[in-house]
Amino acid sequence: MVFQGKKLINDPNDVVTEFIEGLVETYPGMQFLDGFPEVKVVLRADVSRSTYDKVAIISGGGSGHEPAHAGFVGEGMLTAAICGDVFASPPVDSILAGIRAVTGPMGCLLIVKNYTGDRLNFGLAAEQAKSEGYKVEVTSDRLGPGKMELGLGIHGEPGAAVADIQPVDVVVSHVLDQILSPETNYVPITRGNRVVLMINGLGATPMMELMIASGKAVPKLQLEHGLAVDRVYTGSFMTSIDMAGFSITIMRADETILQRLDAATKAPYWPVGVAAGNHPPAKIPVPMPPSRSTKSDESLSRPPQLNRQGQILEVAIEAAANAVIDLMDSLNDWDSKVGDGDCGSTMYRGATAILEDIKNYPLNDAAQTVNELGSSVRRVMGGTSGIIYTIFFKAAYAQLTASSQSIVTAKQWAEALEASIAAVSKYGGASAGYRTLLDALIPASAMLQERLNAGDDPCTAFVLSSEAACNGAESTKHMQAQAGRSTYISGEILASVPDPGAMAAATWYRAAALAVKEKYGASS
Amino acid sequence: MVFQGKKLINDPNDVVTEFIEGLVETYPGMQFLDGFPEVKVVLRADVSRSTYDKVAIISGGGSGHEPAHAGFVGEGMLTAAICGDVFASPPVDSILAGIRAVTGPMGCLLIVKNYTGDRLNFGLAAEQAKSEGYKVEVTSDRLGPGKMELGLGIHGEPGAAVADIQPVDVVVSHVLDQILSPETNYVPITRGNRVVLMINGLGATPMMELMIASGKAVPKLQLEHGLAVDRVYTGSFMTSIDMAGFSITIMRADETILQRLDAATKAPYWPVGVAAGNHPPAKIPVPMPPSRSTKSDESLSRPPQLNRQGQILEVAIEAAANAVIDLMDSLNDWDSKVGDGDCGSTMYRGATAILEDIKNYPLNDAAQTVNELGSSVRRVMGGTSGIIYTIFFKAAYAQLTASSQSIVTAKQWAEALEASIAAVSKYGGASAGYRTLLDALIPASAMLQERLNAGDDPCTAFVLSSEAACNGAESTKHMQAQAGRSTYISGEILASVPDPGAMAAATWYRAAALAVKEKYGASS
Repeated sequence: MVFQGKKLINDPNDVVTEFIEGLVETYPGMQFLDGFPEVKVVLRADVSRSTYDKVAIISGGGSGHEPAHAGFVGEGMLTAAICGDVFASPPVDSILAGIRAVTGPMGCLLIVKNYTGDRLNFGLAAEQAKSEGYKVEVTSDRLGPGKMELGLGIHGEPGAAVADIQPVDVVVSHVLDQILSPETNYVPITRGNRVVLMINGLGATPMMELMIASGKAVPKLQLEHGLAVDRVYTGSFMTSIDMAGFSITIMRADETILQRLDAATKAPYWPVGVAAGNHPPAKIPVPMPPSRSTKSDESLSRPPQLNRQGQILEVAIEAAANAVIDLMDSLNDWDSKVGDGDCGSTMYRGATAILEDIKNYPLNDAAQTVNELGSSVRRVMGGTSGIIYTIFFKAAYAQLTASSQSIVTAKQWAEALEASIAAVSKYGGASAGYRTLLDALIPASAMLQERLNAGDDPCTAFVLSSEAACNGAESTKHMQAQAGRSTYISGEILASVPDPGAMAAATWYRAAALAVKEKYGASS
Repeated sequence: MVFQGKKLINDPNDVVTEFIEGLVETYPGMQFLDGFPEVKVVLRADVSRSTYDKVAIISGGGSGHEPAHAGFVGEGMLTAAICGDVFASPPVDSILAGIRAVTGPMGCLLIVKNYTGDRLNFGLAAEQAKSEGYKVEVTSDRLGPGKMELGLGIHGEPGAAVADIQPVDVVVSHVLDQILSPETNYVPITRGNRVVLMINGLGATPMMELMIASGKAVPKLQLEHGLAVDRVYTGSFMTSIDMAGFSITIMRADETILQRLDAATKAPYWPVGVAAGNHPPAKIPVPMPPSRSTKSDESLSRPPQLNRQGQILEVAIEAAANAVIDLMDSLNDWDSKVGDGDCGSTMYRGATAILEDIKNYPLNDAAQTVNELGSSVRRVMGGTSGIIYTIFFKAAYAQLTASSQSIVTAKQWAEALEASIAAVSKYGGASAGYRTLLDALIPASAMLQERLNAGDDPCTAFVLSSEAACNGAESTKHMQAQAGRSTYISGEILASVPDPGAMAAATWYRAAALAVKEKYGASS
């Protein structure tokens, strides 16, 4: 459900009560007082005022700043949150109901923000609760001299300055300079101090942008202002519905404050993972791939003398690559009707790279040669077909190396083809009939196994298998695409055009089979 | 910093690497591989591949979906997240680097989303890693038949249908009907099943709206579809930068699945508090205020016979209220120049309510009478001045009841006035010189205490005190406002107009003092 710029609500008058209902459905550790619409109080489900042996912590204020305040209800943080209407201080009776609901013999502490409406309503509720016999304290007057807001109105009030849009680096740098200026002396923070940083999103600023701001602010605080940054809180903690932008808060820290900040809480919106103690190095080296064995190193070049298998491989590979090169224009033509028109060019890149690289292929080692085919293709082909052919060759390599024999039998080649098809199908999400190269390769694989099992000589079996590949590729003219870009093309157009990927596969497979048969007759 | 609709970034090409830097600054339990810009891998700082005795869990995909996937790195969830560029699958080499960095002897599990690019890149990386000797598994083909997406493209693809904007009730209902339709049979969920619900915001939809959707979906699932909703996950877990809207996911649940979902994790973006076990009742009754004692009940009506204190109180209250009523037009006039023009009308409402209610005041009990004055004012006055006067009377009441003597002395009245001033100052955030009613009351209080200490008779002391109140109120003409609405008015206008709140306070105070002196002479 996507409604750009529109509000997904019911009656605007009900948003706060419906929000609370959803919050409590989501978090079973919370309850609310059954006093809608006037009384909108969220409280810990595990606290019973008659037996509660701790000081209840109560806060609240206008709604629209979620997750503040209801999202911070939970063991270790708020005992109750009093929700006003959107951007309106909660009424005294609602605050009183919250005080009465959670305050036990130890009394309660009201945490009141420095907003006149909140001060007055919470203040009156506090006086009334005292006259009812409750022990009530309101916090000291301010959150402490280390905390400030600069140029920010949480309800969209105009800022202290309007500036052209700037890179976030510049913005963060400017704001930090303002906050920490020794001239204005807004906050008693000087070089060498320890501080806690909060980057608070106002609702519509994505987490990615908030993290970018944090990532810029920390080194600036460390290097330019000479401060030790002990904790970083990045997120949307106190929003203004869907306001864009963020606030930066810096608080001077000491061990006592850090212990309080690190204390465990079950409140769902207090960030976890910030308090994990000392910061390990942020970045660690990229691990190297396992080094090749000496044996492999030696095998990774063309042997001075090719054995029979090496000669067959060379003939097959060259024939296959040249057939793909010859087919380039046809492939591009077919692909221009059903795809983005570059199938031939892409396959051409792979084929020419193979003809270039074959000079260094360890042709007497069939498995390693197949692996190198994958490397050549991966280096130059790119795109989906590049990855698919790389998977094709890597899977064949894994299958061929599973047996430790140096000479690969026709049956092992058939098993390698089957493994390649399985890997391409698994990672590509296609199977027979999806109008892909598998529609050439799957019938080829089936025919190869059938003829080998029937006792055909390998050359004959491969040639018959390659005919099956060609028939399979032709049959794609009658298929509706189910994978890849062709899914967007109408069946009418497709009916006159074969799948270029399938045609390419059938073509190189058939060329290889025929070349080997021509040169080496009926022996493998 | 507020930049509506603009992106707070540096170079768009650097957003993902800078995001990762900020993420790791924020969460010390995470590290990243030093391979920017190609390799963008976030991993658990506490895992060393050489000694890791568990299967490493690796996922990833295009960036722009934060907190997915890097936000879910942590004990109990992902061991590593591979980040692509925005909306682009990560390259094979980056995935391979992640696999190599965290995979120990037990191997790794790649969790790959059903997106062609991810399937191919992760697939090739898996094949490559296997050929390097790593144990690698990719998950079964799908997340299971209980999970589906409907009409949603996470990158802004067009939806299944375009509809007029509707209340969220209707939208949620429609989508749930589609998902759970017995005709289409999308998901194998039928009446009586247990399910898990996820409401996932796409980035720009505020938490309030997501919670409203959850609050609507749960009863619909329970009552209309006959399902038990075992867990509800509400939040922005997989976004599309700042896309508006949300997705609804329903998964069939059983004990095994719930245990897995409830398992502890240190990943910062997995919601805490959802797994708190059985859901207590969502709402509980609003607690009643403590019942008044029988004694208080009796005292809350006008006594048949007024004692001398009761008579004095009656005279004072009536004179004060009538003076406020007479001053209404002047107060409104002054207030129209420096405020919103309703000071006189608001004070008039309070004064008339007092004259109406005085018939039932327990006048022989001074403390209770003061308390009732507060109740009358609170009932009708509204706004900031209503709350301020309620606080004024409630604080005086609390002070007067602190002494248990039935007759209130002049000194105790003076202490009550002082307590009231302190409470108004504390909760209202104003003090002397702020151009408020305190500029009348503070000099009055000081004069009263001075004259009583000097031995003046109470009547004389109160009259002198009321003169100080009047002088104080007049002096506000020369003050710049520091609290309330007058802070927005220029000093030039203010210089010709007294603060109406201060004038009102001085007027009722002086009227009361003069009336008592006239009627009862030099006795208290």
